[in-house]
Amino acid sequence: MGEFELIEHFFNFSKGESGVALGVGDDCALLECEPNMQWAISSDMLVQGVHFFADVDPERLGQKALAVNLSDLAACGAKPRAYTLSLSMPSFDEAWLRGFAKGLKSMSQVHACPLIGGDTCKGPLTLAITVMGEVPKGQALLRSTAVAGDDLYVSGHLGIARAALLAMQGKLPMSASELARLRLALECPSPRLALGQALRGVATSAMDLSDGLAGDLVKLMRASSLQACVDVDALQGCVRSEPFMADLPQSQRLELMLTGGDDYELVFTAPRAARQQLQELARPLNLALTRIGHMQAREHTASQVLWHNAKGEPLSFEFHSFDHFS
Amino acid sequence: MGEFELIEHFFNFSKGESGVALGVGDDCALLECEPNMQWAISSDMLVQGVHFFADVDPERLGQKALAVNLSDLAACGAKPRAYTLSLSMPSFDEAWLRGFAKGLKSMSQVHACPLIGGDTCKGPLTLAITVMGEVPKGQALLRSTAVAGDDLYVSGHLGIARAALLAMQGKLPMSASELARLRLALECPSPRLALGQALRGVATSAMDLSDGLAGDLVKLMRASSLQACVDVDALQGCVRSEPFMADLPQSQRLELMLTGGDDYELVFTAPRAARQQLQELARPLNLALTRIGHMQAREHTASQVLWHNAKGEPLSFEFHSFDHFS
Repeated sequence: MGEFELIEHFFNFSKGESGVALGVGDDCALLECEPNMQWAISSDMLVQGVHFFADVDPERLGQKALAVNLSDLAACGAKPRAYTLSLSMPSFDEAWLRGFAKGLKSMSQVHACPLIGGDTCKGPLTLAITVMGEVPKGQALLRSTAVAGDDLYVSGHLGIARAALLAMQGKLPMSASELARLRLALECPSPRLALGQALRGVATSAMDLSDGLAGDLVKLMRASSLQACVDVDALQGCVRSEPFMADLPQSQRLELMLTGGDDYELVFTAPRAARQQLQELARPLNLALTRIGHMQAREHTASQVLWHNAKGEPLSFEFHSFDHFS
Repeated sequence: MGEFELIEHFFNFSKGESGVALGVGDDCALLECEPNMQWAISSDMLVQGVHFFADVDPERLGQKALAVNLSDLAACGAKPRAYTLSLSMPSFDEAWLRGFAKGLKSMSQVHACPLIGGDTCKGPLTLAITVMGEVPKGQALLRSTAVAGDDLYVSGHLGIARAALLAMQGKLPMSASELARLRLALECPSPRLALGQALRGVATSAMDLSDGLAGDLVKLMRASSLQACVDVDALQGCVRSEPFMADLPQSQRLELMLTGGDDYELVFTAPRAARQQLQELARPLNLALTRIGHMQAREHTASQVLWHNAKGEPLSFEFHSFDHFS
């Protein structure tokens, strides 16, 4: 099978979907612009041996590759429109391609986000996706627009993906059945698209959690020129009760939650007056929103979150975000 | 230097450019939609050892990486709006990054196409670019809309990039000074954006030449369900007179022109009535347009171009397009 048959056979599954004027197969894909909308665009790259293991289930990899891109759209409150995939792979492996395309297609369909084009070539296994969404003009959620006095929230649970990774590496004891369940969080995260769109006009700023709350929060507070203050006791609301947690010392549990990465939950800020509204919008989404702290004006160039306990007593941690080059 | 400082230092060169509501640094970039426009989107991936040599000048690589994507916009008659870059690289190499970013920036500025986002990570050297352009609704040039009886044209010259590649591999004799000049065609192609936009409303179909005319024409004729007939004598109009050509047998010269690849010229069709108009629109572009043949209704599923000489006598060749997986 040649390159062009390969694309036609495995990657033309979104043919004829609505909103796409022209899909896979020409020099460019064509998309209609809706009036009074802005385009939200994000690109992510996944490299074998860096972002995933060589033996990862290709179907889950297909799901995750798109999910992590959709998570960026969720973070800015955008609705998915379409995506492109560039894929380099060492050889033509039909079984692998079938699984990968199946996962990609299922994630595409769940979120109504058609595959409209891309590239395939020979090379080390690498996936690069660019996702395009739309958001009403001026309503995108940014990192830079939090306001002093805002509450700080996190959606869902933190640390599960990293716990699964550590267990797979033999660094965290976990039963096989528990690992089988928890690795779903690592291998097939759920982009919080419905939450992101519901937060438009309510949240003052938002971002998605890919590198761990401790490091990602620093990016949010720098972008907004504010200081984030987090109540470590309130963070218990982001713990998902799992058997492996029971034996874990408190410090290790915190480290998982704060530096784990791969959570793909949203962290966002909102005014105190929105507390009731937030609980109401979260209910139909079946998603916990935990208020973990607040933003305050900063007195100097801050590079660390201020951590405290429920009594307001300061706590001291040294946390680092994942970084490819430092 | 960490990942985020790296992006800020090397890849935030389009900050504040017009038409970009939000650039590098947030979860998504934001672009304004213009009314009555369609978005044209294309993605290309370049892998070290497959698409370029490890010792390629990083500045030229930066130029080429964007140029080959812009060439896809040219092929559909779109005007560039913005692009994203995903880059995996084995280590932090400041000199390499400085050169690469310089080349990318110069190509961005020449074509008014700002870099609005992307991703960087550790991994084998791989570049994935997604470029976005706009085209008035319904006016994009497609591969599938050629009409029986149309003339067939090629812009510029063919085979120079491949000749340079062969010379670099020691497979084609060429003086060092000639090679230094010709490898510009290989390492820094010029996307035919002005031509593509000028062809809107004149050409009936178009595509860019990346894999060699012989193979790419087959894609055009299949997309349009037509047969392409090429006058091999007329193809001499696409020869750029270079010293190395003098010693080349006619058959090898043809092979270079028809299977070379990496030309990034446009092949397009237009009605006979447009001949005068085409010569006029080409003049200010300082670009030769060579009429090399015509399209005709096809009698059966064609997989080969029909080649003939100026007298109309059929010629027989076996040409294959570059393909990563066959």
